[in-house]
Amino acid sequence: MDVFDAIFTRRSTRSYRPDPVDAGTLDKILLAGRHAPSGSNSQLCHFLAVTDPAVIDTLAGLVQQAFSRMETTENTYISLRWSIKQSKKGAYRFCYNAPALIIIANREDYGNNVADSAVAAENIMIACNALGLGSCYINQLRWLNGDPALSEYLRSLGMAENERVYASVILGYPDTADGLPERTPLPRTGNLVTYIPAKK
Amino acid sequence: MDVFDAIFTRRSTRSYRPDPVDAGTLDKILLAGRHAPSGSNSQLCHFLAVTDPAVIDTLAGLVQQAFSRMETTENTYISLRWSIKQSKKGAYRFCYNAPALIIIANREDYGNNVADSAVAAENIMIACNALGLGSCYINQLRWLNGDPALSEYLRSLGMAENERVYASVILGYPDTADGLPERTPLPRTGNLVTYIPAKK
Repeated sequence: MDVFDAIFTRRSTRSYRPDPVDAGTLDKILLAGRHAPSGSNSQLCHFLAVTDPAVIDTLAGLVQQAFSRMETTENTYISLRWSIKQSKKGAYRFCYNAPALIIIANREDYGNNVADSAVAAENIMIACNALGLGSCYINQLRWLNGDPALSEYLRSLGMAENERVYASVILGYPDTADGLPERTPLPRTGNLVTYIPAKK
Repeated sequence: MDVFDAIFTRRSTRSYRPDPVDAGTLDKILLAGRHAPSGSNSQLCHFLAVTDPAVIDTLAGLVQQAFSRMETTENTYISLRWSIKQSKKGAYRFCYNAPALIIIANREDYGNNVADSAVAAENIMIACNALGLGSCYINQLRWLNGDPALSEYLRSLGMAENERVYASVILGYPDTADGLPERTPLPRTGNLVTYIPAKK
């Protein structure tokens, strides 16, 4: 797919078919993530590529437990407020029904950890769109990266002691009529530009 | 350009020809940035597209002044240490000699400000590569986003009171023999993957 088509038609997918993502496809997507730049070329991202449904279920349970212990105020960010409210009802699943989840961990003591993880996530999402998969950026695991139970479980999966989660992406085949991602992005009414050109 | 070619051949450019980036090219690059996803589709990125050499010079001077006032320790991140050391010598230019700089501001009170700005920056860098331009992610303006003199100047350029800088990208035509970006990326020896597949 042309790079601009891939960028301009990417849209977040929140409903997936159960079909698994095959290993070759997942590898190409991960390679795209690994090719994002990093501060001083540090390459400190650590991708946990989860396709085990039991592990995804365990993570979803831990996330719901963590959110259900939190309280909201009227200033709580809308998405976090929703996560907490649904979790208290036992009706929250941060990863929707996606069959694959790529968790991007990075070093806790590294100042560009969020930035480096996010650029890798964007490559992953563009690659998914080009390969006919849907994807969605998931901020929830980063918000919870201080939760002891979740951290302990992520460490059992391979996250190092000095790492925490700074981004994540869910992916899979979209539950649409033709099985392809919906490729009409929402209008860009925000994300405004101020031009500062040379004086004539 | 094919999307995977654009992703796999992107490499940071730190030396540029003086040729300006024309308005149509800049617009296509900015549109790529604007199409990145944002938390809850908030679209709160604000792109300051600077092509005025006088403004870039002023920013470079303010950045150098800010770094020259900082001290390093042996634990200071290598890139920041370099910025401070060179600034104290009056020899630091955060934006190299690029003819264009896209500063990505976002709301200070918004929890996904760094993530949303970084994914937009990645789209911008991939778009640059596809269009034959070089680019480089610049973290320095974010590190300095609490600097009063720099903030005041950015506000005079259009950054709102409740915004700060969370990412930036320099871009332009690379100073290579053929004028095209160097497209042999550095080897990915880090950015490791841990696979967590379904149990057989």
